[in-house]
Amino acid sequence: MNYVLNKGILLKKAEEEFSTASTEDKNIALKKVSESLENHREDILENNAKDIELEKKNNMKSGLIDRLRLDNERLDGIIEGINTVIKLPDPIWKSDKVWTLENGLTISKMTVPLGVIGIVYESRPNVTVDAFSLALKSGNCIMLRGSSSAIHSNKAIVKAIKEGLKSSNISEEVIQFIEESDRQHVYDMLKANEYIDLIIPRGGKGLIDFVVKNSSVPILETGIGNCHVFVDKNANLKKALNIVNNAKTQRVGVCNACETLLVHEAIADKFLPMVFEKIQSIVEIRGCTKTREIIEVKEAKESDWKEEFLDYIIAVKVVKDIDEAIEHIQNYGTKHSEAIITENFTNAQMFLRKVDASTVYVNASTRFTDGGEFGFGAEMGISTQKTHARGPVGLEQLITYKYLVIGDGQIRK
Amino acid sequence: MNYVLNKGILLKKAEEEFSTASTEDKNIALKKVSESLENHREDILENNAKDIELEKKNNMKSGLIDRLRLDNERLDGIIEGINTVIKLPDPIWKSDKVWTLENGLTISKMTVPLGVIGIVYESRPNVTVDAFSLALKSGNCIMLRGSSSAIHSNKAIVKAIKEGLKSSNISEEVIQFIEESDRQHVYDMLKANEYIDLIIPRGGKGLIDFVVKNSSVPILETGIGNCHVFVDKNANLKKALNIVNNAKTQRVGVCNACETLLVHEAIADKFLPMVFEKIQSIVEIRGCTKTREIIEVKEAKESDWKEEFLDYIIAVKVVKDIDEAIEHIQNYGTKHSEAIITENFTNAQMFLRKVDASTVYVNASTRFTDGGEFGFGAEMGISTQKTHARGPVGLEQLITYKYLVIGDGQIRK
Repeated sequence: MNYVLNKGILLKKAEEEFSTASTEDKNIALKKVSESLENHREDILENNAKDIELEKKNNMKSGLIDRLRLDNERLDGIIEGINTVIKLPDPIWKSDKVWTLENGLTISKMTVPLGVIGIVYESRPNVTVDAFSLALKSGNCIMLRGSSSAIHSNKAIVKAIKEGLKSSNISEEVIQFIEESDRQHVYDMLKANEYIDLIIPRGGKGLIDFVVKNSSVPILETGIGNCHVFVDKNANLKKALNIVNNAKTQRVGVCNACETLLVHEAIADKFLPMVFEKIQSIVEIRGCTKTREIIEVKEAKESDWKEEFLDYIIAVKVVKDIDEAIEHIQNYGTKHSEAIITENFTNAQMFLRKVDASTVYVNASTRFTDGGEFGFGAEMGISTQKTHARGPVGLEQLITYKYLVIGDGQIRK
Repeated sequence: MNYVLNKGILLKKAEEEFSTASTEDKNIALKKVSESLENHREDILENNAKDIELEKKNNMKSGLIDRLRLDNERLDGIIEGINTVIKLPDPIWKSDKVWTLENGLTISKMTVPLGVIGIVYESRPNVTVDAFSLALKSGNCIMLRGSSSAIHSNKAIVKAIKEGLKSSNISEEVIQFIEESDRQHVYDMLKANEYIDLIIPRGGKGLIDFVVKNSSVPILETGIGNCHVFVDKNANLKKALNIVNNAKTQRVGVCNACETLLVHEAIADKFLPMVFEKIQSIVEIRGCTKTREIIEVKEAKESDWKEEFLDYIIAVKVVKDIDEAIEHIQNYGTKHSEAIITENFTNAQMFLRKVDASTVYVNASTRFTDGGEFGFGAEMGISTQKTHARGPVGLEQLITYKYLVIGDGQIRK
């Protein structure tokens, strides 16, 4: 029996009792974990420093080093995140559908935990705590596989979590961390259908593609966002400019940032110079031929329409109408978040109805696609697939349901 | 570009227009299809006779020949099934969740089609029509891959469907049938993530295991049901006997039939002879050691606890209490349908809460796990997985959703 499956057995055993844990027990456990993280603050920061030192020697890029780094303030934020989850309503054992058949059987569709969630993630050690606390609150056990670059940080964090659980009524076995960095373990997780009910990859395109291609366990594909803002002929250009600026520059390294701007040809002469003036000092603009007849920018290549830049770069294309805009989005988008800026009612409705994405906007920034902004309290990522859950994944997306059928001797005729 | 991907391209093209088709256009198209099937009755039956003849030469078992056979009455039933689907409410572009954020953004969670559904199925040609009509009503395009044994029947049926669509406002391209029997085509479907949004396998364990193991397209695992009835100490034995008899014998070749009977030891002496008398003339009983001390039956082997007999065979085990019953179900069940027969309130609640299955019963036959019985009108199968949809899969499980966000210039702070 291999390393991963052994962890799987422990989780499935823990699941039996844990799946029906009370909200009170779960909240107390989360509180104990947050206190334990506080108590292990020094140990966690020391181990994080070890990871940073090693990765500096490995010449990791400074942006990635920053994602890996923990300090007192970031740890405060992580611990505070647990308190947010404690305050969220428990999503388990609820129903909004109870009905009675002619034969007298009463059927209730009840929410229940998925069972065991597997997370395969890169770099950021805060994911260890965030994912654990969402899994725990939704009654799910969790198997975590972080990247080797964060191994010391993650081990210290998991140790603190387990010590917190020890002083609660929840078994410390509900969390299992893959300590060995062997890539084979990821592969084993993806094939562990008997032990893992859902796998969520969190990281770059390479990781996500690997998981999609190889997993026979159901997955929740997250994160890749090639998002567009289309500025229609009848747009209020002041609103449009604010939204484009916000969607592109408010934070660039995130999946809901705007990567391509589409501009209706009838207003391109007026709007593109406004965009240029507003963002060109900090954003590299790559334009189509028509764009470059209006503003002096680099040429956009075919690959630029496909790219999730995650950087201060934007591709700009002039389109002849809303149909061309929608067609471009269907061809190049990743079904994440798409926006139209328009005052035209019919065009707004057409865009909302026709664009196939998790979240479609009229006159607002794509940056709102986020569990926190949506009011879900916290999120496990943004799903870009259509099955199971789409868009921000909060507690209510980490569950399944079962039907209870209550009878008095009914048999089928 | 290969055969399957070419079909996929046609479907994705058809999807663009079809996904927003009106309910009226969809219902008219279904009506036209039912009329066309009526008009092609002779052709369909002739082609079915061809399949039957070929499979008789291939020495197909008589049970399978019967599943393959169409006659006027069965065709009436298939056509009538379309009329049932016409009457069902359209599941698309509805919402039960609309909310407004503090910043004034209004978010609506709207139901939308999945896009393209792939069905990989065995033998029964009625699936071709049933799956098509459910897909069409839910706004989904469909790729069908039936078994080679039904190839002539299926081709004749698809031809009739397409001719029906031609006289409607829905493109005939919304249905694509894989005509070549090459097994490689199934494999290609399972890897066609760009063109197929969900694959539903319908058939035996071999087919389903192959699809689970090889698909990188999200799947809906259906059908394997190793269902249990547990007769508790405090059961009303008359109710229990009726339910066991019904769950085992009302129809044996179905996934919601009972395969193992678990009996509390305190009532085994009394109940097992009742079961024996009731069913032994038509059902082969395979018992555990304790069972065989009470009634004279064959010995159950370890493999019998795992087996979905789909036949007039039942395994019987005496258990010392509800905990052992639940443990046995968790070890051997397939998370399909599980029943407890009891008058004890606390045990009933414990069973409902603890047993992890799509449908859990108190004092009723497992045979009710069915889209029609549940009131869904029709079904695409019974899901035994936890993600996306669990239990009977009706129109409301063949969809996804997207969020519409309506703003007036909002940007993220």
